[in-house]
Amino acid sequence: MNPEKGLQIVLAARPQGKVTSDNFRLEHFSPPEPGPGEFLMKVDYLSLDPYMRGRMDDRKSYAEPATIGEVMPGEGISTITASNHADFSQGDVVLARTGWRTHAISTGAGVCRIDRGALPVTTRLGVLGMPGFTAYAGMKAIGKPQRGETVVVAAACGPVGSLVGQLARIDGARAVGIAGGPRKCAYLEKELNFDAAVDHRSPDFRDALAAACPDGIDVYFENVGGAVWQAVLPLLNRFARVPVCGLVAQYDRDPESQPAGQLAATMRQILNQRILMRGFINYDFAKEYHADFLRDVERWVSEGRIKYQETIVDGLENAPKAFIGMLTGGNFGKLLVRVGEKE
Amino acid sequence: MNPEKGLQIVLAARPQGKVTSDNFRLEHFSPPEPGPGEFLMKVDYLSLDPYMRGRMDDRKSYAEPATIGEVMPGEGISTITASNHADFSQGDVVLARTGWRTHAISTGAGVCRIDRGALPVTTRLGVLGMPGFTAYAGMKAIGKPQRGETVVVAAACGPVGSLVGQLARIDGARAVGIAGGPRKCAYLEKELNFDAAVDHRSPDFRDALAAACPDGIDVYFENVGGAVWQAVLPLLNRFARVPVCGLVAQYDRDPESQPAGQLAATMRQILNQRILMRGFINYDFAKEYHADFLRDVERWVSEGRIKYQETIVDGLENAPKAFIGMLTGGNFGKLLVRVGEKE
Repeated sequence: MNPEKGLQIVLAARPQGKVTSDNFRLEHFSPPEPGPGEFLMKVDYLSLDPYMRGRMDDRKSYAEPATIGEVMPGEGISTITASNHADFSQGDVVLARTGWRTHAISTGAGVCRIDRGALPVTTRLGVLGMPGFTAYAGMKAIGKPQRGETVVVAAACGPVGSLVGQLARIDGARAVGIAGGPRKCAYLEKELNFDAAVDHRSPDFRDALAAACPDGIDVYFENVGGAVWQAVLPLLNRFARVPVCGLVAQYDRDPESQPAGQLAATMRQILNQRILMRGFINYDFAKEYHADFLRDVERWVSEGRIKYQETIVDGLENAPKAFIGMLTGGNFGKLLVRVGEKE
Repeated sequence: MNPEKGLQIVLAARPQGKVTSDNFRLEHFSPPEPGPGEFLMKVDYLSLDPYMRGRMDDRKSYAEPATIGEVMPGEGISTITASNHADFSQGDVVLARTGWRTHAISTGAGVCRIDRGALPVTTRLGVLGMPGFTAYAGMKAIGKPQRGETVVVAAACGPVGSLVGQLARIDGARAVGIAGGPRKCAYLEKELNFDAAVDHRSPDFRDALAAACPDGIDVYFENVGGAVWQAVLPLLNRFARVPVCGLVAQYDRDPESQPAGQLAATMRQILNQRILMRGFINYDFAKEYHADFLRDVERWVSEGRIKYQETIVDGLENAPKAFIGMLTGGNFGKLLVRVGEKE
């Protein structure tokens, strides 16, 4: 029996609309000793990501839903504390889908050792991790911005959106970011050098977006859905590309509350402007682009051409609150939970 | 002054919902003599196509709307009866956008001489014309059916849909056609060798479509929109492709009459199943595929591997009624108007 105390957060109940703290339950457990061929991981950082919202519903998505009573799924960075596995040793730092918990046992399936590079290890959950690769793959495989084109992205201060805009600029395109509130918009324009930022909470959001895109929109990187899509739709140029990687604005919402006729308008615009729209999950493109991604983005971050921001919350017990805040646009940059002791 | 009497049909009023004969007006005119560098065409056949419905509305589409009092736009086959043009001679048979009229003057811009091949000249408006190329280009550039996949197409007895299904079978895919009524469905299965045909007027249409696609849908060639899309959506497989070339079912309809929430469901499915949806107009792909199209389809028709059907209506004055019938699914195969005398 492992003498350490383990903590985990399980899905207590499915959300009815918005996620609340009642949807989660904190449980104590005793981390087991690793069996033959297994190792024990102590989680250092847990990544909180919008896709987790989808897993909380009992609806087929690109992944199976979480079941009630099950540990919330998620990826994190862990340190191996005990190992009976030939390929993993005590002290190894790994990327693994441990879920929302302090300790986890693994046979090594899907676990990647992280070679500590020049950048902080937390970047492997953000700008050099899944969100960063989502931005990179979506732009390389679908968005394909050309010099002088206009690229629009929502949730632009998030880890996906902020990289989308910066990649657009590296390709010589104009980057227009959509974010909630003046502080985020100022950050996009001043820190990340976006060409323009538009506040979706502003009452004149539609006009402001149109004004920020005087030549229309050539690439709209869709990661929110809902009202932003309605504002983007009429601005899309002929042969525009729309990578779709998330719909966070519609996860909580009752679809029946949407106005009628929106699908017809979308289909008509897809036809009239000959738009390409394509849903994707980052790992669909792993084989083709992941090595390029790590090489390019690590270099650009080191050179200061790409900036990133992290919000780190302390203590696994605070994960539900932080997650709920993220879904309503309360956070800034990549959201992480420091699960282990403060370094 | 040309001694012949000319007839033309103009847009008299924009449709309010469904198209009626009141939207058209028949006018007589005296065909002028061709000026320097011009030639006069006598129209033999006019092609009637669903896209013309879009031109009748005062709404930006992929082409400019027709104006009130203007001759209805359209493409046809004509014979040159008088020419002052260096490159076109009396007796030449040409493909030209003459509109709904018996005679037209041209400077040659956009006019193509037709070399009479083995097939009837009318095929250049159907299986070897714009509708045929729409099917071919959409499948080559976007649909890309693989052996064993399932391809679904609506308006499957029309000139686009019937070729989509037959091309799918040539590529080794299963072809499932959607059409209105048992006669059309029988034609698809018995004459065109579709693997299955489903009647969209049947009360159990959704279940019948699901039963006809036991392995789901890999390619849905969208040329109708509306209710058929709702039935197709849940059946789309991971990485399905959806070329969008027309939305005839929604042209007449008030978009506000659509149920709410349909856009959210569509976006969610695009993301979850990583669907590629792309609007296109046949000429977007002319440079890349038109020569291949003429070569392949002419050969396949000659070999009997591809069949086509034409409905020929006599007399330009009957064009409005025939067009209205086509929009409500009343015709079979490619709809043409014989404008000149019966041969």
